[in-house]
Amino acid sequence: MSRGIVIVNTGNGKGKTTAALGQALRVLGNGGRVALVQFIKGKWKTGEIEALKTFGEMVDIHRVGSGFTWQSEPEEVERAGREGWRLAREILADSSFALVVLDELTYLINYLIIAVSDVLAAINCRPAHLHVVITGRDAPEEIVEAADTVTEMREIRHHYRKGIKAAAGVEY
Amino acid sequence: MSRGIVIVNTGNGKGKTTAALGQALRVLGNGGRVALVQFIKGKWKTGEIEALKTFGEMVDIHRVGSGFTWQSEPEEVERAGREGWRLAREILADSSFALVVLDELTYLINYLIIAVSDVLAAINCRPAHLHVVITGRDAPEEIVEAADTVTEMREIRHHYRKGIKAAAGVEY
Repeated sequence: MSRGIVIVNTGNGKGKTTAALGQALRVLGNGGRVALVQFIKGKWKTGEIEALKTFGEMVDIHRVGSGFTWQSEPEEVERAGREGWRLAREILADSSFALVVLDELTYLINYLIIAVSDVLAAINCRPAHLHVVITGRDAPEEIVEAADTVTEMREIRHHYRKGIKAAAGVEY
Repeated sequence: MSRGIVIVNTGNGKGKTTAALGQALRVLGNGGRVALVQFIKGKWKTGEIEALKTFGEMVDIHRVGSGFTWQSEPEEVERAGREGWRLAREILADSSFALVVLDELTYLINYLIIAVSDVLAAINCRPAHLHVVITGRDAPEEIVEAADTVTEMREIRHHYRKGIKAAAGVEY
C-alpha cells in the first residue's frame, strides 16, 4: 500500500472543491473508500452529493452545520465548525478510508475556530496510506508546509464578459 | 434550461483535469449527460474512468490516441489529435449532452495540430445549454477571451519535501 499524500487546493479561483471531487472519483475508481466533510456549505442540495451517492457505502458524506451560511450567527458557525472538526479527526484516524476530503477547512483555521496545531497533529497521526485533500482560500503557511502538493487556483476570469450568474448544473 | 458556460482550467499546477472531473460529477448528479474527450493520455487505466463507468450511458468517454504519449512520433500525435478533434466537434454539436470536457485540448492548439479559430467556431455554434470545460497548460488568449470562467492552477508545492513519486490511488 502506497504512502498517503496531503493535497491542498487553495486560492481565490474556481476549482478547489471540484478538483477534490475529481480526486474522490479517482480514488473510488481505484476501489478506495472516500470520506467527504464539507465545513462551510449552505443546505442546498448539490449535484455532486447526488452523484456521490451512486457509490453507496464507498462514500461517507458529512455536511457540517447543514443550513448555516456566512450570514449565520458567529456562535453557530463556531459550534458547527468544532463539531465538524471532531468528526474530521475521527475520520482521520479511521484506516478504512483511502481518501479524506476536508472541504473549506482553511476557513476554520483562519477564523480561529480550530487550532492549526490540532489539524497538523491529526494529519501527522493518520494511517500511513490515507490521502488527505484540504480545500479553501488562504491556506495557512503551516498547512502548506505540511502538504505534499499545493495548488493555488487563481481566478483569471469569472463570467467576466457576460456578467451572468452561477450556471445551473455545472456550478452547483 | 440555463445557458451553457465555457470553463477553462489552465496553469502548470495540479487540478486541471480533476476539477473537470468534479464538474462532470456535479452535472451527472443533476441528471445531465456528460462527454469526456481526453486528447493527451497514455493507455494506462485510470481510476476516474472506472468510476465514471458507474454512470453507464450518462457518460460518454473517448480516449483519443489510446497508447500514445509525448514520446510518440509527431505524425502519430497529429493524426490522433485531428481524429480527436473531429469527434469533439461532433459532440459539441450534440444537444443530448449537458457538459463536454475537452481534456488537454490546449496542447492541440498550441502545437498547431488544430486551429484556434476552428475551436472557437465549434464552441460558438454549440447548443445554447451545453457547458464546456477545456483543460491544459498555456490556454491560448483567444480561448481565454471566449471563456466565461478561467482558472489558473498554479503549482505552489509538489511533493517538494519528500521527493516522492505519483501516489497510487489519488494521482492516477
